[in-house]
Amino acid sequence: MSISFEQFNTFVKEVTQETSKIINEAFKSQKEYWLKEDNSVVTQTDLVIEEHLRGRILEKFPSHGISGEEFQNQNDTSDNCWVLDPIDGTNSFIHGVPLFGTLIGFLDRGFPKYGSIQFPCLNNELLIGDSSKCYLNNNLLKRKNFSSWEKSLILTTDENRISRSRFYENWSRLKELNGMCRTWGDCYGYYLLCTGLADVMFDIDLKPYDILPVLPILMGSGIKVLDLSEKSDYTTIVACKPEILPTITEIFR
Amino acid sequence: MSISFEQFNTFVKEVTQETSKIINEAFKSQKEYWLKEDNSVVTQTDLVIEEHLRGRILEKFPSHGISGEEFQNQNDTSDNCWVLDPIDGTNSFIHGVPLFGTLIGFLDRGFPKYGSIQFPCLNNELLIGDSSKCYLNNNLLKRKNFSSWEKSLILTTDENRISRSRFYENWSRLKELNGMCRTWGDCYGYYLLCTGLADVMFDIDLKPYDILPVLPILMGSGIKVLDLSEKSDYTTIVACKPEILPTITEIFR
Repeated sequence: MSISFEQFNTFVKEVTQETSKIINEAFKSQKEYWLKEDNSVVTQTDLVIEEHLRGRILEKFPSHGISGEEFQNQNDTSDNCWVLDPIDGTNSFIHGVPLFGTLIGFLDRGFPKYGSIQFPCLNNELLIGDSSKCYLNNNLLKRKNFSSWEKSLILTTDENRISRSRFYENWSRLKELNGMCRTWGDCYGYYLLCTGLADVMFDIDLKPYDILPVLPILMGSGIKVLDLSEKSDYTTIVACKPEILPTITEIFR
Repeated sequence: MSISFEQFNTFVKEVTQETSKIINEAFKSQKEYWLKEDNSVVTQTDLVIEEHLRGRILEKFPSHGISGEEFQNQNDTSDNCWVLDPIDGTNSFIHGVPLFGTLIGFLDRGFPKYGSIQFPCLNNELLIGDSSKCYLNNNLLKRKNFSSWEKSLILTTDENRISRSRFYENWSRLKELNGMCRTWGDCYGYYLLCTGLADVMFDIDLKPYDILPVLPILMGSGIKVLDLSEKSDYTTIVACKPEILPTITEIFR
């Protein structure tokens, strides 16, 4: 049995209220972290939050599958599958920077149907979308127009990683447009894009749990996504306001 | 009459409680901004906060001078002069990014004697120093050791500005040390440095109100400051943990 957007919304609002309290408490104290096999960082809080979310999902939707960042997939060939990133932006989290969030997505036969990002440090704001609409704390987001490159904000998560990739030239050309460039990345970059405060976000080396919950939000808020990955699996993307998609496509293709 | 560190501390704690409320309220609403002659941005909130601070200083210390970002200097040849930046990181503020703060410094015959940074969005945290000690919310900060370049965090405010400067080569060499690089800049970068969460911060084109209130904090927390400006006025600096000052000096000189 699939679920309605209303059901997704109600459930996510409830569980992220719970996880947000745990994350905020942990953010105030010193964060021990260790490296995973792929060299990405993880903290005790990532594990605690993902366990909490898994428990709540299985309690409410016992037949559904779950695919998360920190533990093994469970029943993930199910028509209804949840995708979890307990703390997207763990590097920000461990360095005392409040630009991180909890991602929860819902896949219907593999297709990203609903998505949410919750920001514990930002008054608990919750961004939620279903590919056709996007809501910030229950208010429908209206698309904001692109103004000019001089006033634009261009984001990414990690410039060093881009420098070592085959996209270095494209990224350099994007920067030549003279927008303001910042590494206010991870899910916070997508938040700024959806709310109209940023214009472009370029991201590479994404994992399914980083991007699948974000896609229905981006699309719901009218943001265009250019998939640059070789396997069309959204591991490398440029997301931007629709007016500038032709320029972005010209730069990146 | 100069003032004691205790007097500075008490006064700053009191007035930043007031300004923080105003800033947090404004941060939630849409921010209109305009460009100043030097092309930097300003909002109505910058003006309101600086006026509030000036009013409170003159009420309490009528003989003191004031030099702030947004209005004319008043009596600034006085032996006792306050330096104000109502919102350091206005670009973050207008773009919905909580990495900004209010800077208040105190000069004794031109010498930066006391300084403070207050973060409205970060549980109102207050960092305060007198060049020999540094306190975060009244708790004495202990210096944290440098660990390794692989685990290091290297910060700046605006990479594009560096690319257009004569420091592009030096910055590139710094990045080759393979630390994690981020633009978590402005006063937030100095906060991360003083609390030991970052290792290096490089900043160019600083104005007196950007840096004078920050110097007593940096020095008080044991951070070393390399002044690269031509006029020795701290307009371009690299601040870092003391263990790596030799490497930094070698890269930048």
